[in-house]
Amino acid sequence: MSFEITILGSSSALPTSKRFPSAHVVNIHERFFLVDCGEGTQIQLRKFKISFAKINHIFITHLHGDHFFGLFGVISSFSLLGRKNDLHIYSPGNLQNKIYSVINKREISFNIFFHRLEHEGNKIIYQSKSIEVSAFPLSHRIETYGFLFKEKQKERNIIKEAINKYNLSIKDILSIKKGNDFITEKGEIIPNHKLSKKPYKSRGFAYCSDTKFKEDIIPYVSEIDVLYHEATFAKDLKDIAEITGHSTSEDAAKIAKKANVKKLIVGHFSTRYKNTDIILQEAKAIFTNTQLANDGDKIIIPLKR
Amino acid sequence: MSFEITILGSSSALPTSKRFPSAHVVNIHERFFLVDCGEGTQIQLRKFKISFAKINHIFITHLHGDHFFGLFGVISSFSLLGRKNDLHIYSPGNLQNKIYSVINKREISFNIFFHRLEHEGNKIIYQSKSIEVSAFPLSHRIETYGFLFKEKQKERNIIKEAINKYNLSIKDILSIKKGNDFITEKGEIIPNHKLSKKPYKSRGFAYCSDTKFKEDIIPYVSEIDVLYHEATFAKDLKDIAEITGHSTSEDAAKIAKKANVKKLIVGHFSTRYKNTDIILQEAKAIFTNTQLANDGDKIIIPLKR
Repeated sequence: MSFEITILGSSSALPTSKRFPSAHVVNIHERFFLVDCGEGTQIQLRKFKISFAKINHIFITHLHGDHFFGLFGVISSFSLLGRKNDLHIYSPGNLQNKIYSVINKREISFNIFFHRLEHEGNKIIYQSKSIEVSAFPLSHRIETYGFLFKEKQKERNIIKEAINKYNLSIKDILSIKKGNDFITEKGEIIPNHKLSKKPYKSRGFAYCSDTKFKEDIIPYVSEIDVLYHEATFAKDLKDIAEITGHSTSEDAAKIAKKANVKKLIVGHFSTRYKNTDIILQEAKAIFTNTQLANDGDKIIIPLKR
Repeated sequence: MSFEITILGSSSALPTSKRFPSAHVVNIHERFFLVDCGEGTQIQLRKFKISFAKINHIFITHLHGDHFFGLFGVISSFSLLGRKNDLHIYSPGNLQNKIYSVINKREISFNIFFHRLEHEGNKIIYQSKSIEVSAFPLSHRIETYGFLFKEKQKERNIIKEAINKYNLSIKDILSIKKGNDFITEKGEIIPNHKLSKKPYKSRGFAYCSDTKFKEDIIPYVSEIDVLYHEATFAKDLKDIAEITGHSTSEDAAKIAKKANVKKLIVGHFSTRYKNTDIILQEAKAIFTNTQLANDGDKIIIPLKR
């Protein structure tokens, strides 16, 4: 039951030779979700050995080039590889128009469904039996959304030995998994905790980039396992962060602290930082469990009861 | 007096973790010309330490994505870096429309001049005092042009000692550089070879990608110092090359041999070749001085008299 985030690009608008523009893959139960798709995403996918074929959903935060210029190459390569599966792309703005101005729609071997984000608050935009993805507005220079990936609340796990012992039917099992006790034919009440175990906790990942410090998002990312929050600048450039609609190291850490998340990843670094240690130090001073994003990093969220 | 070609991308349509899509920089006398601009070109420019600011002319062979998807990032980054210099882009088709559908023209900090290629034969499309660039049609699935970069014919070099010895005026010098003899006040004829040396030979580079085997181009690339000719496939895939409008190792080598070029570079390899030695071997069997293109390779054309 995988839940892993791979950083494909950790730079801000200008890439460097070590940091590609924004792109990430979230692998939940072997479903692969692409989050932002900066230039060179397809090159990074190959480099970090992520199968193109497993990606059916792409989430674009906003239409600044460093977050979507890789789509042209990804879509073209999917098509060259003969893809047939539908592709769903979620973004604000008119992304469809940009894509089809560059790539001839008739030459694409599969269907693309563009889902335009245009809402307030936190709204579910995709769900499967076990996964839920929602989007919420961020505060940047143009319309921008953050994304929240969550496992749905799991049911309790049945204790296998109990099935034979009490001769449980499918109906009984479904009831027990919901937390109910079981009553035998003789009228004996077997308490649920003897029949089932606590389920694994639902895991979650939140992605917030690009954005100014925005306290409104705290309820959405509260208690989350991993929060990725941009930290384009160190704290001394707070003014530039404000003007450009970005966050500092301290902004990201304050959100993490107030939301009581378990781990903070900071990324989207300005190219002025040849060494990003200052950003890490400043964030850690406020929120200890902070990690810098580097291209190729994999963050695993383990299963816990 | 530099004349260097740097390979930024040597893959065909699909990039690999080692080979980016088509892109090259030609440095002639410290003027930098970009030839094709596949996805990730700006990343490669940084990696190979080529100054963005020196690029004022970009030549795009054709509008397949692997030859121009990098333009979005290059133009955006130029703008983010505050570029003011004009940029000239040469290509067939309506490239301007594609660029401005994706990037807001008003947000670009400099002027772009799009030069649409639409001609037969070999036509000069750019020239400076010392350099000439021409374009000629290739034979691919869509309208495609090859490019020829040449130093203009140089004048003879004056022998410095002769200037004082014969008290030469500027007018005399200009005449001698053109190959004329000099007549002293006393009427003595000084033959030109005592006053000037043979000039350096004009150097040239030809770029032919993507294209089928096309003998028509031979006169244009005849005797050139370096010919880059695509060799997407080994010879056993001649049929696929024909259908897709590409060349094999043998096709490229035959053009090099018939045109009597000095050096052949083959590139634009299909991703099916994890090892491209077969392509090199097959080409060398026909044209010995063949070299494989690899990302980061620099080919220097030395000055010769």
